[in-house]
Amino acid sequence: MTDTSFNFTPLLAPNLPAPGFKWGGQYPPYNFTGGHNAPEEVPVDDLIAAATRALTKDGVTLSTYFQASGFLGYLPLREFLVRKLKASAGMECTADEILLTSGSLQGIDLVNQILLEPGDTVIFEEATYAGCLSRYASAGVTPISIPLDTNSDGTGGMRMDKLEEALIACAQKGVRPKYIYVIPTVQNPTATIMSEARRRELIDLAAKYGVPIFEDECYSDLIWPNDNNEVERPPAIYAMDKSRSTIHIGSFSKSIAPALRVGYVVADWEVLAQMVGCKSDAGSPALDQMVLAEYCSEHFDAHVTKLNTAFKKRLDALVAALEENFGTAAEFTVPPGGMFLWIKLPAEVDTSVLAAKAMAAGISINAGADWSYEMEDASRYFRVCYANPSTQVIREGIAKLAEICSKEFGVPTRIANVESE
Amino acid sequence: MTDTSFNFTPLLAPNLPAPGFKWGGQYPPYNFTGGHNAPEEVPVDDLIAAATRALTKDGVTLSTYFQASGFLGYLPLREFLVRKLKASAGMECTADEILLTSGSLQGIDLVNQILLEPGDTVIFEEATYAGCLSRYASAGVTPISIPLDTNSDGTGGMRMDKLEEALIACAQKGVRPKYIYVIPTVQNPTATIMSEARRRELIDLAAKYGVPIFEDECYSDLIWPNDNNEVERPPAIYAMDKSRSTIHIGSFSKSIAPALRVGYVVADWEVLAQMVGCKSDAGSPALDQMVLAEYCSEHFDAHVTKLNTAFKKRLDALVAALEENFGTAAEFTVPPGGMFLWIKLPAEVDTSVLAAKAMAAGISINAGADWSYEMEDASRYFRVCYANPSTQVIREGIAKLAEICSKEFGVPTRIANVESE
Repeated sequence: MTDTSFNFTPLLAPNLPAPGFKWGGQYPPYNFTGGHNAPEEVPVDDLIAAATRALTKDGVTLSTYFQASGFLGYLPLREFLVRKLKASAGMECTADEILLTSGSLQGIDLVNQILLEPGDTVIFEEATYAGCLSRYASAGVTPISIPLDTNSDGTGGMRMDKLEEALIACAQKGVRPKYIYVIPTVQNPTATIMSEARRRELIDLAAKYGVPIFEDECYSDLIWPNDNNEVERPPAIYAMDKSRSTIHIGSFSKSIAPALRVGYVVADWEVLAQMVGCKSDAGSPALDQMVLAEYCSEHFDAHVTKLNTAFKKRLDALVAALEENFGTAAEFTVPPGGMFLWIKLPAEVDTSVLAAKAMAAGISINAGADWSYEMEDASRYFRVCYANPSTQVIREGIAKLAEICSKEFGVPTRIANVESE
Repeated sequence: MTDTSFNFTPLLAPNLPAPGFKWGGQYPPYNFTGGHNAPEEVPVDDLIAAATRALTKDGVTLSTYFQASGFLGYLPLREFLVRKLKASAGMECTADEILLTSGSLQGIDLVNQILLEPGDTVIFEEATYAGCLSRYASAGVTPISIPLDTNSDGTGGMRMDKLEEALIACAQKGVRPKYIYVIPTVQNPTATIMSEARRRELIDLAAKYGVPIFEDECYSDLIWPNDNNEVERPPAIYAMDKSRSTIHIGSFSKSIAPALRVGYVVADWEVLAQMVGCKSDAGSPALDQMVLAEYCSEHFDAHVTKLNTAFKKRLDALVAALEENFGTAAEFTVPPGGMFLWIKLPAEVDTSVLAAKAMAAGISINAGADWSYEMEDASRYFRVCYANPSTQVIREGIAKLAEICSKEFGVPTRIANVESE
């Protein structure tokens, strides 16, 4: 803005989110935040072939809004999802029960838009996706967060005893929460997978108190295969919930590429219809949907298996680097899948301070305080996203991070066989 | 929803927009609504070549959110727009003053989100884009609409005498409107182009009363070329407004294809930063942006010239069909560009009733009442979008429409040499 510029400031609506900042031109050299994917795992050649086939087949339909597929999005991609969700998550749904969105974030916004008004109560996990926490703050809702657990076999998630306590407390106050937001399969940030038995308990509690479940499965394709190269996972809550109180969202951001921005909401048509009424963008962009439909029908399963192998290798490098550089100071459970690790440090560390110091040295990490709500020891935790950096960058970055942490907090006490200062 | 389904109705937020309806599988056979494009004008082969080049060059960047281009969107497309907006509309802007959006509709939503709160006043044209009218209703703002004029040479638009009256009345009440929303170049629905002199008057009035201008140029690429195959148009208001109070939006929906959903906002970075803060979708989908950047750099100008020739041919067919079937009962000014015609019928016709009757016969038109606010004789007007149907469909559809109109309202009195009943 030059000196002669019109001053928009007095005209701005009140309580806007923080303004964006200018892009500096590159990510930090040690980029351990965000759901970025591995550059070498983008299937460029197959995407080119898919784009060619998709445009040859359906390019002419670009001439109309919604491509003669209706408000729910490109039909061949919804048809792929019907098959995929049945095979991977046991979900029985039709193409008319799937709304394609610009990433699962637009799905979250639409779910919130149709259900939430200021003063409403929502229930979620005590550590969860930061984007949801900021949305709840903007929406002016009353948040109730439920403690998590993590078992050594990678199961865990929202604790049902604590959920029941919260639901009872709400009922006693005459409050009916609008939904229980849960990430059951590769929880963010703990990466646990909720057992089938606990899913059943959750469904029963939700039904008893008349509260819908908002199931976010955006990471659920990222599970390490077993020795037979097969993935074992419980069915989605959507699949198990016969009362149909569950709204399910998912995404191609993690399984294929985040810049593609294609997510989906699965729910009864009556619920989707309300979201369609609020979806003011005249459809989500076509090419991302068309190319994914064509690519995924042929390559999805093989690609995801290869991707998980690559991610697991990075996780192994991260675990080794943490053990080498932090020793016993870094506590974590090796997760059954995902693209991030949730790490606990000794009580003297404040990870918000650590994150700021690390950022100054070109290392980005997520401080626990940003990823949790009312969690007592949040300042001891941090999240490391490991899908994007190479194993070499992971090793270097964790060594540097340990150095910074040691200098700042005396943790770890020994840096690579050298006493910390 | 089956009988055993969970009932979401009591949980819905109040005052939601009307829910969407299920897609019937096809458009009406005589589809004269919506900014659809001509199917045969989608440059499929060149888009395939562009997709191949774009993915070869930048496919790997799909692995990160924002593709290392930052929050404003894919940099090569913003760089194309810098060149295009300079050449076509005289605009001087940098890539940091352009925000790519999921269609210009997301741009409209973001402008409204950063500026409007309930009770605010906005000024716009008395006949304008229906999507903005519904947005103002949802936003709870006080709308002031300004009469339009249409000259026989296709110039016209918002009347400056009436705008000044409205601004004086606001000032007297101590009200500062949040913006003046205007479609100066191919106004929707009148298709007029505002003269440079009137743009100057508008800028001066806006500056005098401290009100920003919200300039929507989503149709501005659709102008019939002159005999030398060149397009003559006044500079964009953004280009002329040295006070930089203008927020400009545009789109590729009309010039290339509506399903691509790529629009843009041009404004000072400080204004865009507020929109970036509100843009909660983690970036607009990548492939549409990448393919457009590659395609447009090479083909945009030639494509748009060819497109306008095709649209003009359809307009000629529409004008001939109206003259043949409605005779003097249909009043309109042949427009200098665009993809729609705004037609006035005699006072005994109610175009809302006509539109409903026509729809039942497979003919969709926009009733004037849906496209205007407080316009006295709105019920005499209707809008016909002519870019998508073939000339044959235009001829048949208008003949059928005249028959329906004659049967319902006795207008026109003669149908193709047969007295109306």
